[in-house]
Amino acid sequence: MRISELDTPALLVDLERLERNIRDMADYCAGHGLSLRPHIKTHKNPAIAKMQIRAGACGITVAKPGEAAVMAAEGLDDILIAYPVVGSSKLERLVSLARDVRITVALDSLEVAQGISAAAVSAGVTIRVLAELDAGLRRCGVQGVDALVDLSRGIARLPGLEFLGFMFFPGHVAVPAAEQPPMLDAIDAQLQAAQEQLFKEGIPIKVVSGGSTPTARQCHRMKTVTEIRPGTYVFNDMNTVATGTTDLDHCALTIMATVVSTSVRGRAVIDAGSKTFASDAPRNKTIHGFGFVVGHPDVVLEGMSEEHGHLNIAGSCHSFRIGERVRVIPNHVCTAVNLHNEVWGVRGDEVVEHWTVAARGLVR
Amino acid sequence: MRISELDTPALLVDLERLERNIRDMADYCAGHGLSLRPHIKTHKNPAIAKMQIRAGACGITVAKPGEAAVMAAEGLDDILIAYPVVGSSKLERLVSLARDVRITVALDSLEVAQGISAAAVSAGVTIRVLAELDAGLRRCGVQGVDALVDLSRGIARLPGLEFLGFMFFPGHVAVPAAEQPPMLDAIDAQLQAAQEQLFKEGIPIKVVSGGSTPTARQCHRMKTVTEIRPGTYVFNDMNTVATGTTDLDHCALTIMATVVSTSVRGRAVIDAGSKTFASDAPRNKTIHGFGFVVGHPDVVLEGMSEEHGHLNIAGSCHSFRIGERVRVIPNHVCTAVNLHNEVWGVRGDEVVEHWTVAARGLVR
Repeated sequence: MRISELDTPALLVDLERLERNIRDMADYCAGHGLSLRPHIKTHKNPAIAKMQIRAGACGITVAKPGEAAVMAAEGLDDILIAYPVVGSSKLERLVSLARDVRITVALDSLEVAQGISAAAVSAGVTIRVLAELDAGLRRCGVQGVDALVDLSRGIARLPGLEFLGFMFFPGHVAVPAAEQPPMLDAIDAQLQAAQEQLFKEGIPIKVVSGGSTPTARQCHRMKTVTEIRPGTYVFNDMNTVATGTTDLDHCALTIMATVVSTSVRGRAVIDAGSKTFASDAPRNKTIHGFGFVVGHPDVVLEGMSEEHGHLNIAGSCHSFRIGERVRVIPNHVCTAVNLHNEVWGVRGDEVVEHWTVAARGLVR
Repeated sequence: MRISELDTPALLVDLERLERNIRDMADYCAGHGLSLRPHIKTHKNPAIAKMQIRAGACGITVAKPGEAAVMAAEGLDDILIAYPVVGSSKLERLVSLARDVRITVALDSLEVAQGISAAAVSAGVTIRVLAELDAGLRRCGVQGVDALVDLSRGIARLPGLEFLGFMFFPGHVAVPAAEQPPMLDAIDAQLQAAQEQLFKEGIPIKVVSGGSTPTARQCHRMKTVTEIRPGTYVFNDMNTVATGTTDLDHCALTIMATVVSTSVRGRAVIDAGSKTFASDAPRNKTIHGFGFVVGHPDVVLEGMSEEHGHLNIAGSCHSFRIGERVRVIPNHVCTAVNLHNEVWGVRGDEVVEHWTVAARGLVR
């Protein structure tokens, strides 16, 4: 099938770019002795997760036991749930999964660790655990070395758990690579201090898991880090371009849309709005609007209704026609993909893959 | 089942509020001789669409032929597709549907009308058509009386089509009711002039379709309007509260989430972020953050990651505990519902309905 035969809006993945992005990150990790455990939040697709494993990833990262279950059913067998697992229904699924695959959970409180411990003991399984440090994003993670040591010690004492080490998410380090070292060094120093203290107490740290897409290629500078968990790098988007992490040529996913109206002067309206792109604002001022219209740098996707994209074409000399198609790189590819049920893999003009976004919309 | 037995995040619809919202809008329309054709974009759920019909709606409004197909399969038989239908796959579905149910399409160009005309003739069906006027939002719709008359005349001449009248969407009139009359009068004047001109030419206007949720209850003041298409009123949200259209007591949908972390000082993190609430910014400055935490006016949902809601609890004297649940009214309920596969109907603490968001994620 040709791309032109697809209905719109359609999510197109350029397979050559996807393969290159997967390979490049795997090569970086292999070259620096880092384990790669990509976060599947970006694609929610077991087929792409398996491509990442074949390229060298040691396992995958997910946010929910339900996502882990979708991935495990397709053969992914080493899964980090990088999220505190709370509540009986999620705990049931967690320990059930742990019978079949290697499951690790990252958490930041003894309450959550105790809940998992009780469920694991009751089910007769062992759950691996990472203690999360707040690296500066102020989201999850305990704050400071003492709190990290206390939490780690507490986890290590609980039955049904195997304490493996630390996790952090440097989501606040969304700056160009050259500006990252002092921020990453400060995190590294905290992790190292906690590691030394726990070593003295006979609690070895086997894993230190970090690394978002923007920081991924700086992680070899961190003494403590053993694995990284980038997600967005498989596709990239305007937000990773905005941080200087990548460029337009490495953006593998575009959203194809059709012009449906040119009645309003200076505007062309496409059949893709906030229910197609997601409403995520640009990460910084280097991006204008809600996505980049490929081949039309003078056009701005300046507004969105739920089903309409409002293209400002006043600065363009191109005459947009009804029925014409455009391809747009979204600001945030993870939330965009999450809106869709299916994705098409393309090579040039040929559609060669049809994937479902199998792990989207899950609660547990 | 009790609400406490549901896993989170969970979309809860207070059925008493839903029924009241549906009844109030139906009563307003009945009292003013207006037809009510609610837009299903807000719920995407045939069961709620049927509740609207039972309360007196004449039919429903959708954005895509695929949504119309989902609704038609459940017995909804008078459907306006308020969107230019472009492309062979959508046209095929459109004319196929028109064999079984009454279908109307709103459009704003002769190109789109010609495409539908050709498909209708070829399939041996008649498609009803409304010509769209740009009422000021600068999205779809022809601009000005002359363009509306020209388009209407063109549609009326095409085979396979029945020209019914006009549609407009006053989405820019997102101001309190007291400020709306001059804006609505200006639209009404254009519609009236076009109507008179076409009447002289022997082209009667049977339908003039307007009315968003914020403007719905002002539409009886417009001389031309025969039907309104509010969508959000079934649930309401912080954006309809912000425009003064409604109040918190009429917000029927809340998103229940669980506190999963309290490690960072001044923060509580819930298991619902931009993949649960959508990233829609508040419509105006009367709203702070990404949703209203019911019962906690001093708490601000000030940030979101994909799976984390960042509650700023610094101004609250409540001590949030891990495992505790909160209920949040989203800023924009339509994009929030669109992220989910299922919705629960509740009365008090009892869960009495389980609905799927059947028409979400459709392409055609």
